[in-house]
Amino acid sequence: MARKNAFYAQSGGVSAVINASACGVMQTARQHSDQIAKVYAGRNGIIGALTEDLIDTSVESDVAVAALKHTPGAAFGSCRYKLGSIREHRAQYERLVEVFRAHDIGFLFYNGGGDSQDTTHKVSQFSIECGDPIVCVGIPKTVDNDLAVTDCSPGFGSAAKYLATSIREAAFDLAAMSRTSTQVFVLEVMGRHAGWTTAACALAAEREGDAPHVLLMPEVAFHEDRFLAKVDDAFQRYRHCVVAVSEGIKTPDGQFLSAGSVDAFGHAQLGGVAPLVASLISAKLGLKCHWSVPDYLQRSARHIGSKTDAEQAYAVGRAAVEFAIAGRSAVMSAIRRISDAPYRWDIVEAQLSEVANKEKALPADFINPDGFGITEAARRYLAPLIIGESYPPFKEGLPDYARLQNVAVPKKLANAFAVEF
Amino acid sequence: MARKNAFYAQSGGVSAVINASACGVMQTARQHSDQIAKVYAGRNGIIGALTEDLIDTSVESDVAVAALKHTPGAAFGSCRYKLGSIREHRAQYERLVEVFRAHDIGFLFYNGGGDSQDTTHKVSQFSIECGDPIVCVGIPKTVDNDLAVTDCSPGFGSAAKYLATSIREAAFDLAAMSRTSTQVFVLEVMGRHAGWTTAACALAAEREGDAPHVLLMPEVAFHEDRFLAKVDDAFQRYRHCVVAVSEGIKTPDGQFLSAGSVDAFGHAQLGGVAPLVASLISAKLGLKCHWSVPDYLQRSARHIGSKTDAEQAYAVGRAAVEFAIAGRSAVMSAIRRISDAPYRWDIVEAQLSEVANKEKALPADFINPDGFGITEAARRYLAPLIIGESYPPFKEGLPDYARLQNVAVPKKLANAFAVEF
Repeated sequence: MARKNAFYAQSGGVSAVINASACGVMQTARQHSDQIAKVYAGRNGIIGALTEDLIDTSVESDVAVAALKHTPGAAFGSCRYKLGSIREHRAQYERLVEVFRAHDIGFLFYNGGGDSQDTTHKVSQFSIECGDPIVCVGIPKTVDNDLAVTDCSPGFGSAAKYLATSIREAAFDLAAMSRTSTQVFVLEVMGRHAGWTTAACALAAEREGDAPHVLLMPEVAFHEDRFLAKVDDAFQRYRHCVVAVSEGIKTPDGQFLSAGSVDAFGHAQLGGVAPLVASLISAKLGLKCHWSVPDYLQRSARHIGSKTDAEQAYAVGRAAVEFAIAGRSAVMSAIRRISDAPYRWDIVEAQLSEVANKEKALPADFINPDGFGITEAARRYLAPLIIGESYPPFKEGLPDYARLQNVAVPKKLANAFAVEF
Repeated sequence: MARKNAFYAQSGGVSAVINASACGVMQTARQHSDQIAKVYAGRNGIIGALTEDLIDTSVESDVAVAALKHTPGAAFGSCRYKLGSIREHRAQYERLVEVFRAHDIGFLFYNGGGDSQDTTHKVSQFSIECGDPIVCVGIPKTVDNDLAVTDCSPGFGSAAKYLATSIREAAFDLAAMSRTSTQVFVLEVMGRHAGWTTAACALAAEREGDAPHVLLMPEVAFHEDRFLAKVDDAFQRYRHCVVAVSEGIKTPDGQFLSAGSVDAFGHAQLGGVAPLVASLISAKLGLKCHWSVPDYLQRSARHIGSKTDAEQAYAVGRAAVEFAIAGRSAVMSAIRRISDAPYRWDIVEAQLSEVANKEKALPADFINPDGFGITEAARRYLAPLIIGESYPPFKEGLPDYARLQNVAVPKKLANAFAVEF
């Protein structure tokens, strides 16, 4: 078999460890240089392919590639851009095949969430349809942990570790101040429709009475009265109360508590629930509140990355290349849990058709009967994912993160392609 | 000299390292048990003294005391409570002397900011006035770094390290997303009237074009047009823009951009400037913004504590005890800078009269001519304070912080004392 080049791209909201997956892809491809010639990265995800804006990763040193393992963000740029249906947006798919042909690309590795797995799946189908099949392998990534089939998603464990650590630290602060100052602390957590990240905050609690005292997860409709009663009860018991609230909580009639604009994928763009919830508590219970919205900090906090998460992110990148050179296509490298304690896992093949466009909500048996906390089953699932520290190197007091050269591959096509976003 | 007991208390907003100062006090007192019998801690700061709610720290093991070095919050509880003037609130001072006499307390160590140093100073004066002098030594603490005389304040370096790390990480995220999604990221920083913490965000930048691109410090009046022009310029150059904004910025007529309630010391209680600034940028420049308000996370993030800061926090606690047993009173242990690079420092004695009730703003020559950044002089000052990592131990994936028993000392006084807060 003649050697082919590979195309790798990063998609959607980034994470603390998506670059560890990139590292897994690049290092493994370099080990199989008899089958994969060069790895080209898309500048800003699939947009880089559509616009023939490819990055030649072969010029990066082994040291630079290795440093991606501890670098947050997306080294080649990500995108919020979803291909349309093949029927209605055929030109997009034709363009991709044209670019891949021009650059002798035989492998596609697309690193993202459910939408990205859908894109990978469609490209696979289309390339077969037009008689020039490309080996398409998805690589999972999402801090939201809502990807189907895979036991967990790289990016989630590190966000979970950041959030649980932050909750624990803020609770030490609050408990020290609550007699004369702030009595309630509200932390807003990302996660569009699934409460995984909010649930993970509960890991901060070691024993009865520990923060967080109240979780507001998007799987449970927000009832103002029940919520206020729960906060009041926690405050009466412990003299302070910590609330973790998902940006995606909804009222009983299905409206987001804090509705906002809409992103490129047609999902509501949220944020700002914490100040809302804090105002409510102040007004109705007369308690003094502080609130925090970490926003991007929670998904880029590589300095407090989970070692387990970083290892899994690398492993799904490596496995994707191994699947590809074994000729597997239209699959995603997925994490399979073998046991909770001791925690054991491996990487298996998932069918993209089973992953694409699905969102995995928290199972009902992970949520407490009152809806404001998690069960022991949830704790067993979550606990291993934050285990282990994986510190980046530090220089002059700050994390020393990698920056690649990102040298463009010379264009070969005469025609440009317009991408609207 | 007969052995006396010591009283130690923590005051004001807590920090990642105030317990390291407590550790310095307790370990050093234990080493001088010929002169200091027991260290009693005030439950919730000076309120513990007024209400005779004392904690017997002698029951804590050496291991538990040592663990305070890496534990955020305030192990004995803090307070926002300021004693009134001696003339108008004589009963408070009489009560303190009564409690100190009853418990054979000859030393007062008060760990806090400018207001706390004022309290320490007043108690010293009053105890002399009533013929029963107590050795009163202040211990500096404030994440705001606005204490006078001391070169820097314990707590600041760790907050600075957290903020600069967070800015760097969020900027990696933003840069990866800005082509198709968020273009501007706004981070809100604590610091009531002084821009030290906001200035420290600038340490995240290693080279031209690095985040943060715009700082809004309270020392510089906020002019909407100039600010928007600066953001627009940064965005045109770098295709993304990171703004760090102090909660305390004011309009040219001296009004807080986001005014709120008032705390127990009569200071305005702030928060929520970031969403305001983000809305402004969206509305006027049409750029997509995300914003973050870390709030308490920035002052309790012991997991990313500065080693330099933790060492200084310990050293001012230790020195306070050494000053006290040398008979020095009405002083505060202060950090003196000997050189910037290599960074060298020691602990000296500051007069409480020179520290009390003062706020140290950023010097004019630390602020760029355009008001949106810091100078090389500022960088030379700030850089050493975040050097070195000082990780807490981790257990099950999370920082393992100390919790003391906090056993109450039996009350000896028949009368209660009402404290209003």
